[in-house]
Amino acid sequence: MKSATIVGAGLVGSLWAVYLSKAGYNVTIVERRKDLRKTNISAGKSINLALSVRGWKAFKTVGVDKDIEALAIPMYGRTMHDQEGNLTYQPYGQEGQAIYSVSRAGINCKLMDIAENEGDATIKYNEKCIGADLENGIVYLENTITGEKSEIKSDVVFAADGAFSAVRYEAMQKLDRFDYNQDYIEDGYREILLPANSDGSYKLEKNTLHIWPRGRFMLIALPNEDGSFTCTLFMPHENHEYAFDKINTKEEVEHFFKEVFPDFYDLIPDIADVWENHPLSSLAIIRCYPWTSGKFALMGDAAHATVPFYGQGMNSGFEDCTVMWDLMQKHNEDWPKVFEEYQRVRKPDGDGVQDLSLHNYYVMRDYVADPDFLLQKKFERRIEQLYPDKYTPLYSQVSFSHIPYSKAYSNGMKQDEYMKELMKKHDLNALFENGGIDDLIHSLIGDLQKIHDH
Amino acid sequence: MKSATIVGAGLVGSLWAVYLSKAGYNVTIVERRKDLRKTNISAGKSINLALSVRGWKAFKTVGVDKDIEALAIPMYGRTMHDQEGNLTYQPYGQEGQAIYSVSRAGINCKLMDIAENEGDATIKYNEKCIGADLENGIVYLENTITGEKSEIKSDVVFAADGAFSAVRYEAMQKLDRFDYNQDYIEDGYREILLPANSDGSYKLEKNTLHIWPRGRFMLIALPNEDGSFTCTLFMPHENHEYAFDKINTKEEVEHFFKEVFPDFYDLIPDIADVWENHPLSSLAIIRCYPWTSGKFALMGDAAHATVPFYGQGMNSGFEDCTVMWDLMQKHNEDWPKVFEEYQRVRKPDGDGVQDLSLHNYYVMRDYVADPDFLLQKKFERRIEQLYPDKYTPLYSQVSFSHIPYSKAYSNGMKQDEYMKELMKKHDLNALFENGGIDDLIHSLIGDLQKIHDH
Repeated sequence: MKSATIVGAGLVGSLWAVYLSKAGYNVTIVERRKDLRKTNISAGKSINLALSVRGWKAFKTVGVDKDIEALAIPMYGRTMHDQEGNLTYQPYGQEGQAIYSVSRAGINCKLMDIAENEGDATIKYNEKCIGADLENGIVYLENTITGEKSEIKSDVVFAADGAFSAVRYEAMQKLDRFDYNQDYIEDGYREILLPANSDGSYKLEKNTLHIWPRGRFMLIALPNEDGSFTCTLFMPHENHEYAFDKINTKEEVEHFFKEVFPDFYDLIPDIADVWENHPLSSLAIIRCYPWTSGKFALMGDAAHATVPFYGQGMNSGFEDCTVMWDLMQKHNEDWPKVFEEYQRVRKPDGDGVQDLSLHNYYVMRDYVADPDFLLQKKFERRIEQLYPDKYTPLYSQVSFSHIPYSKAYSNGMKQDEYMKELMKKHDLNALFENGGIDDLIHSLIGDLQKIHDH
Repeated sequence: MKSATIVGAGLVGSLWAVYLSKAGYNVTIVERRKDLRKTNISAGKSINLALSVRGWKAFKTVGVDKDIEALAIPMYGRTMHDQEGNLTYQPYGQEGQAIYSVSRAGINCKLMDIAENEGDATIKYNEKCIGADLENGIVYLENTITGEKSEIKSDVVFAADGAFSAVRYEAMQKLDRFDYNQDYIEDGYREILLPANSDGSYKLEKNTLHIWPRGRFMLIALPNEDGSFTCTLFMPHENHEYAFDKINTKEEVEHFFKEVFPDFYDLIPDIADVWENHPLSSLAIIRCYPWTSGKFALMGDAAHATVPFYGQGMNSGFEDCTVMWDLMQKHNEDWPKVFEEYQRVRKPDGDGVQDLSLHNYYVMRDYVADPDFLLQKKFERRIEQLYPDKYTPLYSQVSFSHIPYSKAYSNGMKQDEYMKELMKKHDLNALFENGGIDDLIHSLIGDLQKIHDH
C-alpha cells in the first residue's frame, strides 16, 4: 500500500491527511504536541482566524465543507471604531460575500476527527521531529514523554509543521543553496477575550470584523460562537509613542485603553486584570526555497509563514492542498514531477501572500481611517457594482476569488497606482454627490479592465 | 582570573584570542576541526584572500603585523585579460597602495601560533559546538572523535565560527525576534591551481590581481608565495549560456577554456585533468540580528558572511576585533554595554560590507570591461591625483581607508550617480585628449567634495 507521513497535525496537516487518504495512501501524522482534543492547550497562539473562499474550496474538494460551516460565523464587512466611538462600515465585497470567523482549535479538532474517522489516518502524539533523511523519506522522532527515539519511512513526506518547521530547520536549512529568511516586523500582538453579555448575547455587532485603527497601532475583534469576541491588539514592541514596552502596570493598561479605545474600554472595564491572560507574541515573515527535496515537501506555514494582516495564512495553507492535489492528478502521483511543479508554480504565490499581508499591514495601520482611502474603496465598490465582471478590487481578488496570490498582488498594485492618479484628476466626492460618478466609471471601464487580466 | 571562550579557531577567532589575552583574559578556543597546522586539510574552501588596511590595522593594534607581512604579496592593481589576450591595467589606488594576497591557511596557522605562544590561549580541537546557554555563558561541546560531551562556562563568549555558525544556528536562531537571512547568489565558484614554472618563477605578472571578465562570468588569479596562482572561476550554476552545469566532461572543460580564456588555457593545457581537484562551491550572503545575546557575541562571518567580490570578508572580520577592542576600552569591559554598542554601531557596517560585495559582484561581472566604466575609473583616479584630500573613489574608501563600510557604500552610490550624470554632459575622452580634463576637475571639486563627507 502507498504510504505517506505528515509532520504536524495542525490545520494544513490534518486536512492534507484527508486528501491523501482519499487517494488511497496509508497516512501517518506525527505531532509534537498532545492530542488537542483531550487537552485545554491552544493549538497555537492565534485562536481566531478568518476563513475565505480559498479555504472553502479546499474543504469542498474533499467534501468536508459542511462540517466546517457549522463552526463558521460570517463577517460581511469591517466596522471601524474611531476614538470618539463613531462607527464606519465597509462591506468586504458584493451582496452576500463574507469571510468567516472560525476558532483555530475548533476546526483543527474537526479536521483531526475527519482524518481519523473518515480518512483512516493514524495520528501519533508527543512525537517530536529531530531530523530527517530527505532522500529516503525518513522522519526521525523522539517521544517528548518517554524520550524514546524512533523513525518512520514512507513513500512521501509532507512537512506541515508550521512557521518554525522542524523538518525545515533540522534538514532543509542545511542543504547547499537553501535560501532562508525569517524577518520579524516591529509589531507584536496580544490577545484579549471580550466576553459575551450575561445572557450570552454579543457585546458588539456580530457579523462584522471590528477594527479600532489608530495610525501606528490597532485593535481588532472577531466573533466567537459563544457570544464572545477574540480581540487582538497589534502594536510596536518598542520605540514608539504607543508601544508594548510602555504598558506594564495595571494603571498603564487601564490608562491606555481609556485613552485610545474608550468605547472598547466601556465594554471591558476589567481590562487591566485580563491583560496578562495571553502572552505578548511576535510576528514574522518566513520565506524559503526550495520547498521540496527528495521525498519531502513543505506545506502551509512551513513553506510561507506570513503576518496575519490579510487573513490569508490559513487560507493559503489550505490552497496548498488544492494545488498539490491537482498536480497529483496531473502527474498521476509521479512525486518528483509533482514536487518540481508544486514548488515552481506555488512559490511565487507564497511570496505573493506574504507581499499582500505586508501591504495590508500598512493599509490597516496607516490608511484604513484615511478619508482618501475610504473614498477610493467606495469608488472601487461602485465600479464593481456596475461592472462586476470587469473589475475586481484587490480585497475581492484575494478573499473572494481563486486568482493566484502573485497575480492578485501585481493587479492590486497596478489598480492602486491607477486610482491614486485618477483621484488627483477628479473630485470623486463631488461626483458622488452630483451623480456624475457612474458616467466617469462608464468612461473608464475599458482602461480599468485592462489593468488586470485574470 | 577573567575568562573568555572563543568558538572557532579560524582567522577572526585566532586573532581575537590574541586581543583578549592582551587584556588579561584566560582564553580557550574550541575548534570543530583538527589542528590545521598538523594536517593537510584546507581551513576553508577559499584558499587565497586579499588583505587590506582594515586587516592590517587589526594586526597592528596587537603587534602581529610584522609576522603577517612576511606572508603577504602586494598587488598594486588589477590586470584585465580580454578574449584575445590583450591586457589592460588599472592601479587600485595611489602610488604604493596595494592589497595583499595571503594564503588563508598560512595566516591562520601563524595567528594560532601567536595566540598559543604569545597569548597563552588554549585551543581544543575536534570539539563541535552542539548548543549554548546564552545567558550563562556556557558552550556545549561534543568531541567528534571520542563522542564525549562536555561544557565550558566563561565570563564572555565569542562565536567566530563562520558563515554556518553553530552558536547562531543552535542557539540564537531560536530566539524570539531573531532576524535571519541566508541568500545564495546564482553563481558558484571553482578553484584552479596555476602552478609555477619549473624554475619556480610566476607564469603571470606577480604583483597584480588578474581578471578575465566575460560579462556573466569571470576568472580571477591571485599570486602565491611559491610562484603559483590560485585561480577562481565564478559562474552561474545553471540557466545561462555559460554555466557550471554545462561543463561536465573533460572535453567540455577543455573546450570552454580554449574558447573563452585562450591565454589562460595556454598556461595550463592540462586544465581538464586538474578541473576536478577542487569542488564546486556556492556563495551566500548571511545577515542576522541581533549579534549579541546574554554573554555571547557573533563576530566575523558568523555575524555578516558575504560574497567575496570586494575582498572584504576577512578584513571586515578583523575590523570587528578593532571595533570590539575599542568598545572594551571605552566601557571598561562592562560587557553588556560593550555588546549593546557593538551590535548597534557595527550592524550597519556588516550590512554595508555585504551591500558593497554585491555591488562589486555586478561591477566585476558586467562592467569591468566596459569602456564607460573604465573611463569613469580613469577620471576618478585623475581627480584623486589632483585632490587626494578632497576626493576618494569608492574602492579606496573601502580598501585603503577606515571609513565605516556603511558610509563608504552610501558615499560610493552617490558618487556613482554623480559620475553617470556628468558623463552624459561631458565627453571625458575628448577632454583627456585635449588636456581640458584638469580644468573640468578644478571646476567640479567643490561639488565632488560635498558628495561624501567622511
